[in-house]
Amino acid sequence: MLTVAEALVVVADCVTVCPSIEVPCQDAWGMVLAEAVASDVDSPPCDRSVVDGYAVCSADLRDGRAELTVLEELPAGRLPKHAVTRGTAVRVMTGAAIPPGADAVVMVEHGQLLEDGRVRLPQAAATAGQNILRRAAAMSRGEVVMEAGRLLRPADVGLLAEAGHSRVRVVRRPTVAVLATGSELVPAWQKPGPAQIRNSNGAMLLAAVRQAGGVAIDLGIAIDEPEALRRCIKAGLECDVLVLSGGVSAGAWDLVPGILQALGVEQRFHKVRLKPGKPLWFGTLAGPQRSRLVFGLPGNPVSSFVCFELFVRPALAALAGRPAWQRPERTGRLTAGFRHRGDRPTYHPATAVPPADAQSNEPPLHYDVTPLDWQGSADQRTLARANALAIFPAGDGTYQVGDAIPLLLLD
Amino acid sequence: MLTVAEALVVVADCVTVCPSIEVPCQDAWGMVLAEAVASDVDSPPCDRSVVDGYAVCSADLRDGRAELTVLEELPAGRLPKHAVTRGTAVRVMTGAAIPPGADAVVMVEHGQLLEDGRVRLPQAAATAGQNILRRAAAMSRGEVVMEAGRLLRPADVGLLAEAGHSRVRVVRRPTVAVLATGSELVPAWQKPGPAQIRNSNGAMLLAAVRQAGGVAIDLGIAIDEPEALRRCIKAGLECDVLVLSGGVSAGAWDLVPGILQALGVEQRFHKVRLKPGKPLWFGTLAGPQRSRLVFGLPGNPVSSFVCFELFVRPALAALAGRPAWQRPERTGRLTAGFRHRGDRPTYHPATAVPPADAQSNEPPLHYDVTPLDWQGSADQRTLARANALAIFPAGDGTYQVGDAIPLLLLD
Repeated sequence: MLTVAEALVVVADCVTVCPSIEVPCQDAWGMVLAEAVASDVDSPPCDRSVVDGYAVCSADLRDGRAELTVLEELPAGRLPKHAVTRGTAVRVMTGAAIPPGADAVVMVEHGQLLEDGRVRLPQAAATAGQNILRRAAAMSRGEVVMEAGRLLRPADVGLLAEAGHSRVRVVRRPTVAVLATGSELVPAWQKPGPAQIRNSNGAMLLAAVRQAGGVAIDLGIAIDEPEALRRCIKAGLECDVLVLSGGVSAGAWDLVPGILQALGVEQRFHKVRLKPGKPLWFGTLAGPQRSRLVFGLPGNPVSSFVCFELFVRPALAALAGRPAWQRPERTGRLTAGFRHRGDRPTYHPATAVPPADAQSNEPPLHYDVTPLDWQGSADQRTLARANALAIFPAGDGTYQVGDAIPLLLLD
Repeated sequence: MLTVAEALVVVADCVTVCPSIEVPCQDAWGMVLAEAVASDVDSPPCDRSVVDGYAVCSADLRDGRAELTVLEELPAGRLPKHAVTRGTAVRVMTGAAIPPGADAVVMVEHGQLLEDGRVRLPQAAATAGQNILRRAAAMSRGEVVMEAGRLLRPADVGLLAEAGHSRVRVVRRPTVAVLATGSELVPAWQKPGPAQIRNSNGAMLLAAVRQAGGVAIDLGIAIDEPEALRRCIKAGLECDVLVLSGGVSAGAWDLVPGILQALGVEQRFHKVRLKPGKPLWFGTLAGPQRSRLVFGLPGNPVSSFVCFELFVRPALAALAGRPAWQRPERTGRLTAGFRHRGDRPTYHPATAVPPADAQSNEPPLHYDVTPLDWQGSADQRTLARANALAIFPAGDGTYQVGDAIPLLLLD
């Protein structure tokens, strides 16, 4: 049976980054830039005032001739009508173009309007270039301002817009079909009859896929009947990823692996050395450019969740062209003794809090971790109370207060 | 002039949490639950097998009678047809109901099918209750399983579905209108003429609002003309929040504050002791239940970004009912000497990396921080290269390599 680390390598080896797509730049945050981007403009496009003030010939102030005729008032976004010559000034707003002839801007606070309309400026208050941002100081036309592979943030979106890329080519979000299987399942809005259970995995997985940046497609519930299952699975194979839950453990009614193989999906592994989540199934459907990925998650909700976090979420990040992704692994110290039994590494729902003496402006070096009283892989109520999974290694072990154990933070 | 901390208090005092709305549970992640949620079912709904195996009377194995007649095979989701009596067993799949009369399940691996169809089980392999999850072990019908105010995660969504809440009442996402003002602006798809600049703030702010969980509404560009501005601002005041950029500095063409006041928006503050971002304007429009918030961000893109991060993002979190939100503040150590000039605390674009000796499974206690060569508040190219804002206190200061300074992490 593969270890978690070995299984992750198999999944990673099957991922090909999704093709690129052009989107409006304001929708590109959280996605990965698919090609280098050059600016089609100088920024700023001309010499600009960085303050509200008077554009002047600095020589006028050096000579001590500080009373200047104001030729015009110039806001950002208008072209100057006048050139500034000795003895004159233009009143400029922040961001306004520097008129020809001016080589400095004196802040408006330093000027005093005279009765004849001229402005008096203090002597020696200007040096050449003062308060002027030069054309192309931030970027030049034709210059590459962002490389392919960049994960875009809102600040990057602003730069893309300034550089003329109102639309940008990014790696497409992976499409992910979610299908719950099992004749015992009823939709969440329906009251389950005796021996039935609600399909909670569907909602959980749809939310998790969307949170991970995927485009989730809800395929609902497929009953344990070969033709119904086959039809649903075939529809799911249209997506980049098909996430099934249920139907992959050893029970006699488990039809899923056989149907997948009949549809051309090649099994890459079945079962991973992990608890909960051991029955995890993974396969690929070969395609002309790239393979589709199929994850068969165990039907119990906590197993399904743990397998999503450990395997599906990193795969979605890789498909989206993002850097390697995993939940942060931290060190926990047990707040109580704990007895672990089992032949597989166990991801046990737990609460993790920074220790009482943690500094607010420093991330905690470790967390105080309390494994929750957990009823097993069907008990998602305890999972919902957890903010971490405490990782106990395989083998029976007795742990003491203060023992260090690794944990995955969920929030 | 208010400090950043004082201004944040003013904003916080004006926030009323948005009203609640009912949404499908799979869309509720990232939102805050508006009312306590009780389960309408026991979970599990009946005693259940947690393994594939044989449901037996444990007394049969204590007596050493280990060859049992198999009455039926029972998958999850079907009702048993038979009760288990002494000398008999039912083959149960994981999740199947425990038939009446049975009080233990023996794992299928321990059974051996005999030629006459009976199954041989090893002696003393069953104790009463073994491998059975009791009805309501995880939650009972009528029990509150989640409290109001909870920020929902995908694992919570699963529990909501199981508890019968296929639709849940959550705090509505705030609606946020984004309006860029200034006659110098042209849309990002247009080539700017002389003295024009592209509207990059619009795209940046739309992306930032969506990233922060708001519903962003693009109001485009309003030129510096009173009637056009008034119309656009009035439309924006239909939303929970109106975010303007531009039009709030001291220039003579700055019409925005006057129009806002004419429309009934009360100024709460104008100008904050901060660089970039000093001209920030904040006001509220009183309404029957709750006030609408209006942020007038400075027009320069880096100023706009910093004001969004410091003021608008926390306000959106508060409107959505989320716990107090701020970018994590960490400690940086300068990798190079730096000279800071200015009479206001300055948020300087910087790169922050964990120090070379940081442990991979521990968050760094501090970051090596390098202030970038930054051309001022119009230079968003440098902002896009930054992953942190280094916070230099007011006053001219010379900093040495290794000096500690606070920083806000942007990623």
